[in-house]
Amino acid sequence: MSSFVKVDSVYLATQNEHKIVEFDGFLRPFGLNVLPLPAGIAKCPENGVTFEANVMEKASYYAQYCDGFVLADDSGICVDALGGKPGVHSARFAGPDGTDEDMRSELLRQLESIEARMRSAQMVSVVSLWSRSFPVGIVARGEIEGMILDHPRGAHGFGYDPLFFVPSLGKTLSEIPTHEKNRISHRAKALSSLVNTLEKLGMI
Amino acid sequence: MSSFVKVDSVYLATQNEHKIVEFDGFLRPFGLNVLPLPAGIAKCPENGVTFEANVMEKASYYAQYCDGFVLADDSGICVDALGGKPGVHSARFAGPDGTDEDMRSELLRQLESIEARMRSAQMVSVVSLWSRSFPVGIVARGEIEGMILDHPRGAHGFGYDPLFFVPSLGKTLSEIPTHEKNRISHRAKALSSLVNTLEKLGMI
Repeated sequence: MSSFVKVDSVYLATQNEHKIVEFDGFLRPFGLNVLPLPAGIAKCPENGVTFEANVMEKASYYAQYCDGFVLADDSGICVDALGGKPGVHSARFAGPDGTDEDMRSELLRQLESIEARMRSAQMVSVVSLWSRSFPVGIVARGEIEGMILDHPRGAHGFGYDPLFFVPSLGKTLSEIPTHEKNRISHRAKALSSLVNTLEKLGMI
Repeated sequence: MSSFVKVDSVYLATQNEHKIVEFDGFLRPFGLNVLPLPAGIAKCPENGVTFEANVMEKASYYAQYCDGFVLADDSGICVDALGGKPGVHSARFAGPDGTDEDMRSELLRQLESIEARMRSAQMVSVVSLWSRSFPVGIVARGEIEGMILDHPRGAHGFGYDPLFFVPSLGKTLSEIPTHEKNRISHRAKALSSLVNTLEKLGMI
């Protein structure tokens, strides 16, 4: 293998422009510009049974059509009393057309008989970086530990945030401002591990 | 993220004992012992559209049940004139019960109308390393360039090896002894990139 290449930009495997801005905000201080995917690529399937499989599927699929590195992410909530569910199905937990409120209701329904102290859960984010022209890629994972409440609390965030109480903060993820959440989030931890690894490899 | 951990053994995501011996032979000189998976874990599905998705699926799935790092691999042959086929379907190209000879016949049938100089192909191997207790994992890819012949040549190897002519060797992968193939193979290149990365990260 040749030595490690330098990376100064990455294509983000998403159709969501807001996400590009968010990732760029995190990565630009480390010398990585975040770019949208080239237009016209058919959407990648996501069949994985784990977050890690999904992110490598996305990164390696889109990398076939990109000249450079592709960054992909996946995230969800894993509830211990439900054996890790909803996990990779977090966004579809109330069916493909379910709203955020539907997803929360479904989660609370499944936890009905579970007492408060048994409702431990993790918010999980996994990211991956892959290029078709370099033989090595990185996968990184970040988690926050929390407990699932009985009722939503807070006005910020989205998805399961209002039900996710973080003991170390004394608040749900919806009770802290978005910029604070972005600083301490599972995604921030995953990206931070990715950046740390790239630095150690001399790639940024 | 805490600093990078030291790794001295890996579980290999396979039921094939022969493979464990082969990987151990390659990795032991670098201080990595290769162990079989703990007994009784249900087999991981492999739904990926890329080798990279499949290896991260296997490594992250089995890592849920293992105390330590799991190494997974996937490999296949990608023929340019067939748009990269058979790719991740290499081992099932003649159906789930097809023999090696059936697979080769199917490949030759699909290439019937393709002239010799247009039959470029790659033997591809991808490996990945993942642990549930460490936030960073590595994926590494190795390839050999070759051309698909009209008729099998050579007595060694298996699968598509007798059809895969490597111009730089002037031979098919079946015309070189197994120990020489293991030294120059796509898998050796993938493992070598993995080892190189782990060394750079101070993990071995």
